[in-house]
Amino acid sequence: MMSSEAPKPQFRWSHLLIGRPLETRALPHQVVSNRIGLAVFASDALSSTAYSIEEILIILALAGTGVATLGLSIPITFAIVSLLIILTISYRQTIHAYPNGGGAYIVARDNLGELPAQIAGAALLTDYILTVAVSISSGVAQITSGFHALYPYRVEMAVGVIAFMTIVNLRGVRESGRIFAVPTYFFIFTMLFMLIVGLVKYTLGDLGTVKEVDELVRHDVQSLTLFLVLRAFSSGCTALTGVEAISNGITAFKEPKSKNAATTLTYMSATMIVLMIGLTLLTHQVSALPSEKETIFSQVGRTVFGDSSIFYLAVLSATALILLMAANTSYADFPRLAALHAGDGFLPRQLTYRGSRLVFSWGIMGLATSASLLVIVSRARVTSLIPLYAIGVFLSFTMSQSGMVVRLRKIGQLRPGEEVPGRETVMRYDPHWRLKMFISALGALCTGMVMVIFAVTKFASGAWFVVLLIPTLVFIFFRIHYHYRDVARLLSLEGVPVDVEKRSIQTLILVDDVHAETVRLVNFAKSLDHPWHAVHIAVNPNKVDLIREKWHKRIGEGELVIIPSPYRLLAEPLRQYIEELQARTPGSFVHVIMGHLAMDTFWEQALHQNSAVIFNLALSRMERVVVTSVPYQIHRNGLAREHSAEAHRDH
Amino acid sequence: MMSSEAPKPQFRWSHLLIGRPLETRALPHQVVSNRIGLAVFASDALSSTAYSIEEILIILALAGTGVATLGLSIPITFAIVSLLIILTISYRQTIHAYPNGGGAYIVARDNLGELPAQIAGAALLTDYILTVAVSISSGVAQITSGFHALYPYRVEMAVGVIAFMTIVNLRGVRESGRIFAVPTYFFIFTMLFMLIVGLVKYTLGDLGTVKEVDELVRHDVQSLTLFLVLRAFSSGCTALTGVEAISNGITAFKEPKSKNAATTLTYMSATMIVLMIGLTLLTHQVSALPSEKETIFSQVGRTVFGDSSIFYLAVLSATALILLMAANTSYADFPRLAALHAGDGFLPRQLTYRGSRLVFSWGIMGLATSASLLVIVSRARVTSLIPLYAIGVFLSFTMSQSGMVVRLRKIGQLRPGEEVPGRETVMRYDPHWRLKMFISALGALCTGMVMVIFAVTKFASGAWFVVLLIPTLVFIFFRIHYHYRDVARLLSLEGVPVDVEKRSIQTLILVDDVHAETVRLVNFAKSLDHPWHAVHIAVNPNKVDLIREKWHKRIGEGELVIIPSPYRLLAEPLRQYIEELQARTPGSFVHVIMGHLAMDTFWEQALHQNSAVIFNLALSRMERVVVTSVPYQIHRNGLAREHSAEAHRDH
Repeated sequence: MMSSEAPKPQFRWSHLLIGRPLETRALPHQVVSNRIGLAVFASDALSSTAYSIEEILIILALAGTGVATLGLSIPITFAIVSLLIILTISYRQTIHAYPNGGGAYIVARDNLGELPAQIAGAALLTDYILTVAVSISSGVAQITSGFHALYPYRVEMAVGVIAFMTIVNLRGVRESGRIFAVPTYFFIFTMLFMLIVGLVKYTLGDLGTVKEVDELVRHDVQSLTLFLVLRAFSSGCTALTGVEAISNGITAFKEPKSKNAATTLTYMSATMIVLMIGLTLLTHQVSALPSEKETIFSQVGRTVFGDSSIFYLAVLSATALILLMAANTSYADFPRLAALHAGDGFLPRQLTYRGSRLVFSWGIMGLATSASLLVIVSRARVTSLIPLYAIGVFLSFTMSQSGMVVRLRKIGQLRPGEEVPGRETVMRYDPHWRLKMFISALGALCTGMVMVIFAVTKFASGAWFVVLLIPTLVFIFFRIHYHYRDVARLLSLEGVPVDVEKRSIQTLILVDDVHAETVRLVNFAKSLDHPWHAVHIAVNPNKVDLIREKWHKRIGEGELVIIPSPYRLLAEPLRQYIEELQARTPGSFVHVIMGHLAMDTFWEQALHQNSAVIFNLALSRMERVVVTSVPYQIHRNGLAREHSAEAHRDH
Repeated sequence: MMSSEAPKPQFRWSHLLIGRPLETRALPHQVVSNRIGLAVFASDALSSTAYSIEEILIILALAGTGVATLGLSIPITFAIVSLLIILTISYRQTIHAYPNGGGAYIVARDNLGELPAQIAGAALLTDYILTVAVSISSGVAQITSGFHALYPYRVEMAVGVIAFMTIVNLRGVRESGRIFAVPTYFFIFTMLFMLIVGLVKYTLGDLGTVKEVDELVRHDVQSLTLFLVLRAFSSGCTALTGVEAISNGITAFKEPKSKNAATTLTYMSATMIVLMIGLTLLTHQVSALPSEKETIFSQVGRTVFGDSSIFYLAVLSATALILLMAANTSYADFPRLAALHAGDGFLPRQLTYRGSRLVFSWGIMGLATSASLLVIVSRARVTSLIPLYAIGVFLSFTMSQSGMVVRLRKIGQLRPGEEVPGRETVMRYDPHWRLKMFISALGALCTGMVMVIFAVTKFASGAWFVVLLIPTLVFIFFRIHYHYRDVARLLSLEGVPVDVEKRSIQTLILVDDVHAETVRLVNFAKSLDHPWHAVHIAVNPNKVDLIREKWHKRIGEGELVIIPSPYRLLAEPLRQYIEELQARTPGSFVHVIMGHLAMDTFWEQALHQNSAVIFNLALSRMERVVVTSVPYQIHRNGLAREHSAEAHRDH
């Protein structure tokens, strides 16, 4: 009939903050190069070294700060590195198998079923929130290590950073990539430089040890048990959080997506291994000790470069920046994963809506709110957050790799050359399926064990919360799913005869006072050409006579029914009245027409009660009660005259 | 036609907190006896002694803590007492002249005009908020004087008390009266007891002086100028805040209202005079010194009774309690005064609505919010709030008494026995009008002078804020007034011919998807019997073909127009479409019908986007565009079956 041309969105002040709206067709162009991809997706994994080494030492220090005790951090680190290598190989397989995005949720859904998928998803969503909270708290701790005066403001600083990051991400991923590329590379090069200088000084016998450390106050020295070592190991495993980020975000890479993503993953892991081993050895060499007020990196940095060196400042700022930016990985992944859940009907559907900049705005806001809450509750202390952290990631690792094992077993049962289309990807025979399956199984086994160690050794200090939270989330996800399923069934027209017969309509006009707006209401009701009468709810009994008189004088037609309301309620007396009407003529529509004064500004609007909201809420529970709002525009400036002119002309 | 029986309000959880709803006719019964009235209205005035004596000393101590300097507090107190006597006599006249409530706002409006009335009202409203903030901060300071460990939590405590007081007042005034009667009398008797014990000990030479005071840190000693003495005097005048409370609340008294109110006022002033003089002398005798951590009353109390005496604890708790309860005077007066302003159209009309318990709920909430804000900003420190305080009260004193002067002059011009009806009360000849006018003029002069002294001596330390705030408020009040006046004029039907002619209606159905709810929409549109067609806004271009197909298969009649929306906007493309429709047939109604899924619970509702809100907002600015919401009820439990049964039956 009519082909409306698409209107350009009007200017809003928010566009200055998050950029001008983008058209839907701009969507596929939002991809990143490998170099930017490394910056966007690796910052989480790389930055974890900043707190993982520290948290290992904090746990070991419970058994004393002797060289032999703290030296255990070296074998622990090698164990973690081995785990990382297994994970990397395993995840490269996943990336190749799922070129459209191979996060734990998708892999589990594809191979294990709905429940494991929801468990993996709930675990990951929890951990994305924790990544933001932990990374930003640790980043702020780096800053306050250099500037002790800022220590009391760490919570405010952390929340401020979350707010900034939220705005950047509401702009969209490509812009974020550019902003975040610099800090990631700055961190890598600063750390490598520190390792080299440290190595040179060590060779020359020039390195020395940390001076003036504000040691952690320890309550009582525990004995060095296997339990304690495992606890330290599990704390250190937080370094591996973020390794899965690339597998979730394959679609953000340029074509060929899988190859680019896998290459980036390999580069990332190699960098991580160098940093983890190098920094652990250096930390041990300079005898850095965990402290409340100064981070390990700060101690190492000033020992290697000297207190007032510009390179010491570079270490602090590079670590702070990459940590603050690491949170960005979660900003990329959380909304994407939440949208996947929502698309499958396990989270509110609003999470699938793309905002004006094509990002999942609801997911971004949800992540920002939850992470801010965690930062506030934990007073931005990393050590308080660590026990909650990483269980989710390791649970999802296990799920994802178990899914790959199932998938590879199926592939092994195909004949060479045979292809089977699946929900996500095509399964194709692979001669190396046995080796690949072994790697995935090994990965699943190791990460599963680490998860159990984590949950057991940290249960009392906070892990219990996550152990309870994940099943709760899964329960909620399924409740939501059943809701959507039931609503869809109730709304479905399959097999139900469609009833579009005419019914009778009884029209009511709600009258508060008699003035020009009332005339508009009567005008509309008469134009509808159905039987109608007016209703006044007598909240103020003193006004009734005046209104009745004005009605007869001004309108002079139609009946005006007065409904008493001794408790000054608006909706309940009307509801009762409509129920009586409906009882007399069942099956008919009751059509309630009410006015609404529309003002030019918010402030003017706030001076008038919007009863329409109250009525809509109260009447929406009633079968076949239809509510119509007839706006009457009030323009105080200039247009006022036009209005009265129009009123005259119309007549 | 139909006489609906008034429904009893349904049970809500909030009823447990604020009590069951009351009928409108219960209103006149909410009155209090003199004894309760004294407790309700005097707590503000009586409690002011707790901070006024202290604030006098804080200012004098700027010039040193010698006996001669601090001894100036005695003549200053006598000056304040003289002012109180003048005010009491003057206000008794006002109470008799305005038996229906003689607050400054009413007296000024009646005798001086609209602008002075708004000034008086704005001043009083400001001061009511400050009364709550100052009294509660001071009350909390009494508690922390006894329990130093609580000192860091004073802001939280103060805000908590405000919350408690808000709930009590949302229940209604009589209940509050009962709750507040005990503390007021407890305070009066405890203070009198302390004065008597102090006097006896003094006579026996047994009184001694305060030991171990944490003196205020003074920056540099100023010289004792007249300016400083006036500043101390104006600080002390905060004692007089609350004297006007009874004149505002006359209607809360039993009949004869004026007589009861005047008697209560006299009792209140007499009590105040005894306490002010007695406590000032006692404070001086024990050489109490202002301190950040301990109040003067606490120092006096432990010197008279001893550190560990139960009576010392009684002094602290009585002072704390009456201060905390003093805020209640404002809870009684602020909402009442705000409702008066709103009734005259100078504040949002919502302030005149009585809640379920017949109190002005909006006013109570507004007061609580503003006072909490002040407490938080001032960190609950009384000394930071004092410079803002009392200017408003003295401005309203001046306005009120000037109004009485004008009124009494008019009365003097009447013949004996003559009566003239005014807006508020009848003016009757009074042979003593000259004397009465002289008293009111004296009161106006004195309070006006105090106000000027206040504003000048405290301008730099905070009074500037109030000096700016009051005119700003008056400006806003008039802006609101002009808004209501203009709207009333635009809506007025006086002299305008009433247009209730039928017009043509074009009906649109908004279709998001085709399901049972859509059938209900079509059903209603067809029942209306006007030309209609359906419209789908193509936010998701991939869904369009499916929807078109479902429409033809399921509905099979009426046209379905697809409107493209490349920016994923809902309202703007629709608005443009309607504008095109209207351009073709000017003057007709455009009737937009949309569906609304109504769920049983809030949580279920939150899982579905309520587009109706977005459309209502966007379309309410358009002339003659009427929006109808057709609810479709989703009952998941049990009723689901009924629904489909009904669908079958209907056909």
